[in-house]
Amino acid sequence: MIKRKGKYTFIFSEPPCIKGAASVAGEEEEKGPLGNKFDKIIYGCHGNQDTFEQAESLFQKEALGIALEKSKVKAEETDVLFAGDLLNQCAASSYGASAFSIPFAGQYGACSTSAQAIIMGAVFVASNAANIAAAVTSSHFCSAERQFRFPLEYGAVRTPTSQRTVTGAGAFIIGKKERNLPFVSAAVLGKTVDMGITDANNMGAAMAPAAADTLKTFFEDTNTSAKDFDGIYTGDLGEVGSEILAKLMKDFGYDISGKHKDCGMLIYDRVSQDVHSGGSGCGCGAAVLAAHILPKMLSKEESRVLYIATGALLSTTTGAQGATIPCVAHLIELGI
Amino acid sequence: MIKRKGKYTFIFSEPPCIKGAASVAGEEEEKGPLGNKFDKIIYGCHGNQDTFEQAESLFQKEALGIALEKSKVKAEETDVLFAGDLLNQCAASSYGASAFSIPFAGQYGACSTSAQAIIMGAVFVASNAANIAAAVTSSHFCSAERQFRFPLEYGAVRTPTSQRTVTGAGAFIIGKKERNLPFVSAAVLGKTVDMGITDANNMGAAMAPAAADTLKTFFEDTNTSAKDFDGIYTGDLGEVGSEILAKLMKDFGYDISGKHKDCGMLIYDRVSQDVHSGGSGCGCGAAVLAAHILPKMLSKEESRVLYIATGALLSTTTGAQGATIPCVAHLIELGI
Repeated sequence: MIKRKGKYTFIFSEPPCIKGAASVAGEEEEKGPLGNKFDKIIYGCHGNQDTFEQAESLFQKEALGIALEKSKVKAEETDVLFAGDLLNQCAASSYGASAFSIPFAGQYGACSTSAQAIIMGAVFVASNAANIAAAVTSSHFCSAERQFRFPLEYGAVRTPTSQRTVTGAGAFIIGKKERNLPFVSAAVLGKTVDMGITDANNMGAAMAPAAADTLKTFFEDTNTSAKDFDGIYTGDLGEVGSEILAKLMKDFGYDISGKHKDCGMLIYDRVSQDVHSGGSGCGCGAAVLAAHILPKMLSKEESRVLYIATGALLSTTTGAQGATIPCVAHLIELGI
Repeated sequence: MIKRKGKYTFIFSEPPCIKGAASVAGEEEEKGPLGNKFDKIIYGCHGNQDTFEQAESLFQKEALGIALEKSKVKAEETDVLFAGDLLNQCAASSYGASAFSIPFAGQYGACSTSAQAIIMGAVFVASNAANIAAAVTSSHFCSAERQFRFPLEYGAVRTPTSQRTVTGAGAFIIGKKERNLPFVSAAVLGKTVDMGITDANNMGAAMAPAAADTLKTFFEDTNTSAKDFDGIYTGDLGEVGSEILAKLMKDFGYDISGKHKDCGMLIYDRVSQDVHSGGSGCGCGAAVLAAHILPKMLSKEESRVLYIATGALLSTTTGAQGATIPCVAHLIELGI
């Protein structure tokens, strides 16, 4: 069952486990420091599909297929799928993971969707609404650039604070607790935080206050601090957002230095790769969680970590209308 | 707690109740048969806001505010908000209901989102992940036409099979079971069904097979049929989709005639109003559920009903690329 603790945290008395996880990444991601850790690399912008959008859907299908295989679970044994992405009307999920004929509930939290989908899966499993749940998220540099910024053919120059949308997907199979597998022990769904930022090329700055709000909430609710964890991973704040998060947490009285790492900075080599402030996108945190964080837990290098995925809930329409960017951050505590 | 029954149905042993519900609608909806039942009417395409999108966000805020008031629940007592809409990146929710500073998880299932959000809320409450949950969905004729079809100023002629996007929102406050309040006793999350339809002006036909699949699943899982229910309400199949649903169910061996009603047909007077096949949109089913179905239950006119919201998971990008339309239908069983 589940118990609420403090104001916003809920604790899983019998923590659902992550039976298996898979990551699929693109060729720019292969060149990064985690390049040889992804389960599969799909080459080319189109991945042998007709469109960027179909390519992103393919990433989801491949990630879910591999995660099911690694978990020794069949699609028809999976009771519910929570999937999401950045495309209009979550098209990569509707044409992607949903093709597996698993009952499907689309999730949207921009780049926070990976944590959100895992939380939904964990709650469904812990409550017996599902025996097995799947959580899948993706992003794709080409489909995201076209939709949110400029067609690639324009060759637009990016601002220094901007981040590169990761071409990748992560999939997670969630089931009842099993020995020696990572489990989800607690979670916080975040509130939206809007600090008045309107610059869609500086999403790290927009999202950092949401991450700080959720992390502070969790620390307060559970009476913990950074020293209680082996790692505190954010999804895709990038360099700019990570610095702001550290400062905000210091203002709240928490020192996260030495413990905080950002998936957007782990996935690329920012010296040799042209990625400015780092990686971003629904697929960034998800792929790094599957390829890097969970394997570290399985090898007992880290045994208690926080994963906080942040999302900037803007659209091109609201951006063109001059609206500020509401952001949200969802947190899961993982143990083994 | 929750128990699974059959292949896809889950049953709430202690059914969460709907503590209060509210509907907000536009002026075309006020002219329809349910016109005097909505909690609030907002006049004009812009509703005194600067943009259509802000107007739609206002519908969400008003609906949630009224639902909280009717439920005698404060926003800060609400543990989680599940909200969704049809706009790119769910913008109406991000700038709408999420402004209440309630932990927020965006949902996307196109017009099936109303049932999906209520299911999420019911599972969170039944599992104690939340004491109180809110579910809010909206759609807006002007924002939807601009995004999915043509700017209103073009004065484009609509095809006879098309439906009119409802300007409206519905909000539901879900809590632990209470006497004399409607409750959610069971639910089915649907699988995506893609019958190869590519005509975005005939969504009823695209969505009917998904509704049939989910309804048949529920009947089989629970060993029930239409005669066990006072009403079987679909979200927005319209006239065309409703006829197809009846035929498909007959093929499956179930006669739903006399029991089936469609919110898209209930909300407008199709003789005097220029709405073609009927109403559609996330706000259609939600507003009718809040303004019409739940009041019928509270007055004991109907005591056991099914609400099935259907969604066509297309986007303008996938439509332009010639993709077929995957559809999904989610079902809740309501009792009192």
